[in-house]
Amino acid sequence: MNRPIGVIDSGVGGLTVARELMRQLPKEKLIYVGDTLRCPYGPRPKEEVIQFTREMVDFLLEKNIKMLVIACNTATAFTLEMLRNELDIPVVGVIQPGARAAIKTSQNQHIGVIGTEGTISSQAYPQALKHINPSIHVNDLACPRFVPLVEMGVLEGEDAYQVVAESLVPMKEQNHIDTLILGCTHYPLLSSTIQEVMGNDIKIISSGDETAREVSVLLEYYDTFSNGYHPPQHEFYATGDRALFENIANAWFDSPVEHIEIITLGT
Amino acid sequence: MNRPIGVIDSGVGGLTVARELMRQLPKEKLIYVGDTLRCPYGPRPKEEVIQFTREMVDFLLEKNIKMLVIACNTATAFTLEMLRNELDIPVVGVIQPGARAAIKTSQNQHIGVIGTEGTISSQAYPQALKHINPSIHVNDLACPRFVPLVEMGVLEGEDAYQVVAESLVPMKEQNHIDTLILGCTHYPLLSSTIQEVMGNDIKIISSGDETAREVSVLLEYYDTFSNGYHPPQHEFYATGDRALFENIANAWFDSPVEHIEIITLGT
Repeated sequence: MNRPIGVIDSGVGGLTVARELMRQLPKEKLIYVGDTLRCPYGPRPKEEVIQFTREMVDFLLEKNIKMLVIACNTATAFTLEMLRNELDIPVVGVIQPGARAAIKTSQNQHIGVIGTEGTISSQAYPQALKHINPSIHVNDLACPRFVPLVEMGVLEGEDAYQVVAESLVPMKEQNHIDTLILGCTHYPLLSSTIQEVMGNDIKIISSGDETAREVSVLLEYYDTFSNGYHPPQHEFYATGDRALFENIANAWFDSPVEHIEIITLGT
Repeated sequence: MNRPIGVIDSGVGGLTVARELMRQLPKEKLIYVGDTLRCPYGPRPKEEVIQFTREMVDFLLEKNIKMLVIACNTATAFTLEMLRNELDIPVVGVIQPGARAAIKTSQNQHIGVIGTEGTISSQAYPQALKHINPSIHVNDLACPRFVPLVEMGVLEGEDAYQVVAESLVPMKEQNHIDTLILGCTHYPLLSSTIQEVMGNDIKIISSGDETAREVSVLLEYYDTFSNGYHPPQHEFYATGDRALFENIANAWFDSPVEHIEIITLGT
């Protein structure tokens, strides 16, 4: 079934999820919408996040998508259940895949979660983890300095190390955890620095990688794998500055992003 | 939804899958059927495997299962698609989860698969891998000496090492692979020896662990997670010798298996 997969995010963070989708599912065409003009969603009231998310979804439904990936932790926390009830295509969020992978990986049932202040205060990860296994112990921590770091392109080196090390002090002190979930789609770009700070004994789970895998599961169960074999032509849409989006996309992907278009959502 | 999950296998190998299901999904009740009397299925004609598998499935449908896990590679290869078409509950096999995890894990797209002669000659793993990503290179190898080793309880030490090392020579010579799928539910019990032989650079994928994770995905998407919080009382049924089944089950699980019953399938 050669319909595209829709991917939505409040901005550029979801590009890490798109990158993993392309790597793990090279036959699938993606249409990405990043609401870069109104980013970040984290500090916005729930009703506004729902409204903005709906606008992105409506845009993608016009494109006849076969599946929707909410590549944004805040939007997942606020809209996943609602969209699952409303849409007749499968809807995948980033929170449950990360939770599930951590449950599989952890041997001692002590799991750490880092994310933005919005995601951490929503308690979406502890809820997802305990819904599957009530005995799991969760240590969560907001790391508000990580997203600015990533968007400035400071991913490795001394400056990155210092910010990451300072932020993760409370998590390091919880020396029980054996698994750490990167509960923000920006964080995988800092993963080597995070691994260095936390030490090699800690298994790092990237929600984006795991989300791509669950998309693969659902393509199988809904029997909607693409039949195409040619490299698909992905499409990227953003609501904010074109050059900014293009620069970040080209820096994060292996090859330059071709189809980028600026769109207007809402009124 | 507090209906049980059904797990079927030609014998005892599927107990490694059951063990992972219990670990990753501690609220879910399992009903396991092992056709130990007619094990192994590998050398049997396809029609017979289909017939025997149907008998196990009918037994489980009477128990009102909410999902079926085919914890046997041969039965997955021969019956997965048929059972998915016939049953109105989700059906999960062991092959696709292992394939999907390997695709996520491999960085160089060279993946090794080991299994019984039946599974390897069915080409089910290469097909599953290439269905998702046609560029994947697959090296597969039958290891007929591994199952007898596991059933004798020889899992580590010099004897195990020697058999595993001799068997894996052709795979080691393919020094391109960075990921190895254990394509037989017995093999996870040999995984530390296999890792030792292959070296620590090779990532080992256990189909059973990955299958448990995909069961979790489908419980979420079909909204059928158990609401129970008490330890579920699992049930185990076998068609062959009781003591043999009990000994192996008790050796492989952390705690003794309580409910074991011998049943007759077919006529």
